[in-house]
Parts: sequence; structure tokens; C-alpha cells
Amino acid sequence: MTVTIAPVDGLPEIRESDDLAALIAERAELRDGDVIVIAQKAVSKAEGRVVRLAEVEPSDRARELAADRDPRQHEVILREAARLVRTRPPLVIAETRHGFVCASAGVDASNAPEPETVVLLPEDPDASAARIRDRLRELAGAEVGVIVSDSFGRPWRQGTTDVAIGAAGIRPLLDLKGVQDAVGYELHATVIAVADELAGAAELVMGKTSGVPAAVIRGVDADGEGSARELVMPADRDLFR
Amino acid sequence: MTVTIAPVDGLPEIRESDDLAALIAERAELRDGDVIVIAQKAVSKAEGRVVRLAEVEPSDRARELAADRDPRQHEVILREAARLVRTRPPLVIAETRHGFVCASAGVDASNAPEPETVVLLPEDPDASAARIRDRLRELAGAEVGVIVSDSFGRPWRQGTTDVAIGAAGIRPLLDLKGVQDAVGYELHATVIAVADELAGAAELVMGKTSGVPAAVIRGVDADGEGSARELVMPADRDLFR
Repeated sequence: MTVTIAPVDGLPEIRESDDLAALIAERAELRDGDVIVIAQKAVSKAEGRVVRLAEVEPSDRARELAADRDPRQHEVILREAARLVRTRPPLVIAETRHGFVCASAGVDASNAPEPETVVLLPEDPDASAARIRDRLRELAGAEVGVIVSDSFGRPWRQGTTDVAIGAAGIRPLLDLKGVQDAVGYELHATVIAVADELAGAAELVMGKTSGVPAAVIRGVDADGEGSARELVMPADRDLFR
Repeated sequence: MTVTIAPVDGLPEIRESDDLAALIAERAELRDGDVIVIAQKAVSKAEGRVVRLAEVEPSDRARELAADRDPRQHEVILREAARLVRTRPPLVIAETRHGFVCASAGVDASNAPEPETVVLLPEDPDASAARIRDRLRELAGAEVGVIVSDSFGRPWRQGTTDVAIGAAGIRPLLDLKGVQDAVGYELHATVIAVADELAGAAELVMGKTSGVPAAVIRGVDADGEGSARELVMPADRDLFR
């Protein structure tokens, strides 16, 4: 079974209150079982998750962490962080309220709607994905999966890969527990983060600067009722807290 | 530009000294610019990177780390590890000689050629990829990229994703330094681990139990002369050593 990944071309710059699902449905022919991956930045902008730095007063802690960068941005990072995991000013790795560990608690100035603003992660990216999924069903009549993706760094490895921070209508993890390989060895510890692989695959056609914030993946059997919260390692199983 | 990911179907169980490139070239029509992703397990088996547990004498340290598991396997893990990163018996996260941080230093009993054997990572996965690439050029007349992939866990996130542990003929990292977004913000810290996203994308059609150890990705512009070693974070930049 061949998998295809197609960019959704021609989307305008996303603004607050835009109907992202409608913008996508107008530009992509969707089928049952497709997975639509949408960049977090687009979802956040549509949801108005944008902060004007002019309205932010940085704390001493923010100034300290910012080093030579804008301390107002670091103030926003501190507000978005549930826990700081590592800091090397101006670099901050933080856990968000959702449980995601990422640079700057997901606060980002790139691809913001205008200068002097930063974009936050959606309040509830799984709910964002579910809303977009429902709207796509309404508009396109197709039962699709939706992933909200973001670019995360990883310990020990260079570069970011896109991962799923929100999901609806898909099974984010494929658990092979009890499944046996060809010589009868049971794959007891094998769980595949399919949603993250889908998000990364979509990045291959989206690109950071080409202004393509969405892609359609076809041919993957990942239907299900899951959420991206399942991708967060529970604290008691996490060797890296 | 649409990207396609096609499994290489019908490959036999791989044995030592198999000509993997020939087996693939017989079953897939390759074109210039294609990226061939091959599961580490297949590459390792072809290279004879298999250890019979009957020939392994476990040390006390291996017994300690193994808990209720086979201490001979943990002995092999200790031999393959350059550094132990975290241990919670029987779980061992280790850095390999190549610099990769992964479970069991890449030693795995699943999909081994027979019971009572374990498979090691290739000695030099970049060299493995380069050899396969040269052979594919010879056999298929196509200038392709080759990635050797393996399933790695990640801190803080559930499930594994496939990443590149060997590469040839591709640019593993896409550095957007100096590139500006639509509002003129310079993406100074944006480097995308394209090779890892390609490896993860290929996993979507490979599957752990379906016996498909290779896939062909078409439509991605990732030509270059890089190696998977570039994906290893240098120690001085690593906040998680």
C-alpha cells in the first residue's frame, strides 16, 4: 500500500477567526481515512493565541533567562511553562501545561502574524483537532483524522522533527504487545508513535518558509479515537524527568 | 509536490551475506532522487551482526541490569554500550559507539534470524548506507539516497519513531539559518532533521511484523552528501548528557 503526502497549496496567511477547515476543504479533495496534518502555528493564529510583546512586562527571572534576547518573550515563555526542564540562557526547555517538553514552552516568534508578536500553543490542541475534524466532516463529507503538528527538538539528536501535539480521529500509538515476529518472538515492548511519524512525514511537504501549513496523508490505516495526550510519557514511566 | 512512500514488497527473510541492494533493485523500480529507507535489522543481518547467546558469558553487572530477563542479552548490551545513560533494570538506555542514545544500545532480539540470537547495530551504518547506494547505482543505474533506519524511543514521549542511523546521498539536516519567514523574522535556530522524518515516514509502510524492511520515498528534494553522524548532537551543545 503506497502512502501519499500532498501539500495543501494556496492557503492564505492565517488570521484570527479564520475557518481553517473551510480554507483546507476548498483546496483539497478529502476522502474517508485521510489524515490532515496542520501546523500548530496556523491553528494558533486562527485561535488568536498571539501575544503582543508591547503588552508584556518582563520579570527579573525573564531578564535573567533571556540573556541577549528580548526578555518580554522569555516572560511569555515563563507564563506558558508548567516546569522548566533545562535552561542555558537564552535557551529554555520547558514542560507545557499539556505535558509536552519543548523549546520555549512552544512560544515562537517565527511565522508570527506581525513583528513584535509571539505565538503560543493552542490552549487544548486535541480540542482544536477535534473541532477541525468535525468541521471537515460537515464541509467535505469525509471522515478524516486530524493532527496538529509542531517542530520539537530532541535530546541527543540535532535538528527538529514535527510531532503531533493535537489529534482527533486517529490512533496515535500502535501497540504491538502480544504480536509475534517471524520467529515467534513477542514484541512486548513495541509501541509505535504513528501520530508523530505522520506529523514528521507531513513536514516533508510543508516546509517552514514555503507557507504551506497543511498536508493530506492518504493510504495510512490509522483510524481510531485517540488524542495526542496519549503521546505524553506518564511521569512514573519517564526516566528523563 | 506530492511525496509517495512505497513498500518494497516480497523481500525474503534476510540472511548473512545477502546482497540487499540486489534484492531491492529486483523488486522496486528506482529513479534518480529516490530515497531508499532500509530497516537496520535487515542491514545488520546481511552484515552478520548477530550474536548467539549460547556463546555469551554474562558478567555480574549484566545479571544485575537484567533483572528477570536473560543476562546474556544484557552482557551483549554492555559490550555495545559506550556509556550507560539511564538504567532501570531490565531497561537500559545507552549511548552506542556511534553516538546514538537508544534502548539496549541497539541490541534487539525481535526479528532476529532465529531464537537465542540477538542483532547488533551495523558497525558503521553510514558505510552500510554508502555501500548499498553504490550497489544500487550499479544495478539500477539510479542516483538514490539511502537511509538505514531504526526505531528509537524518546524522552517524555510514548512510543518509538524510526530515525536515521545511517545515510548516504542525502542531506540529513536542512538548515534554515538566515532564511526569513513571511514577516521578515530570521529563522536563526531552525534546523530540520529531514533524514529522521524520512525514516519515520518510511516506517508507516514498513511495519514491524509485516516483513517489509524497505521502502522507497519519491518526491523529496533531499539530495546531498551527508551522513547520519551529523544527526548526533555534539556533547558541548547537548543539554541532556
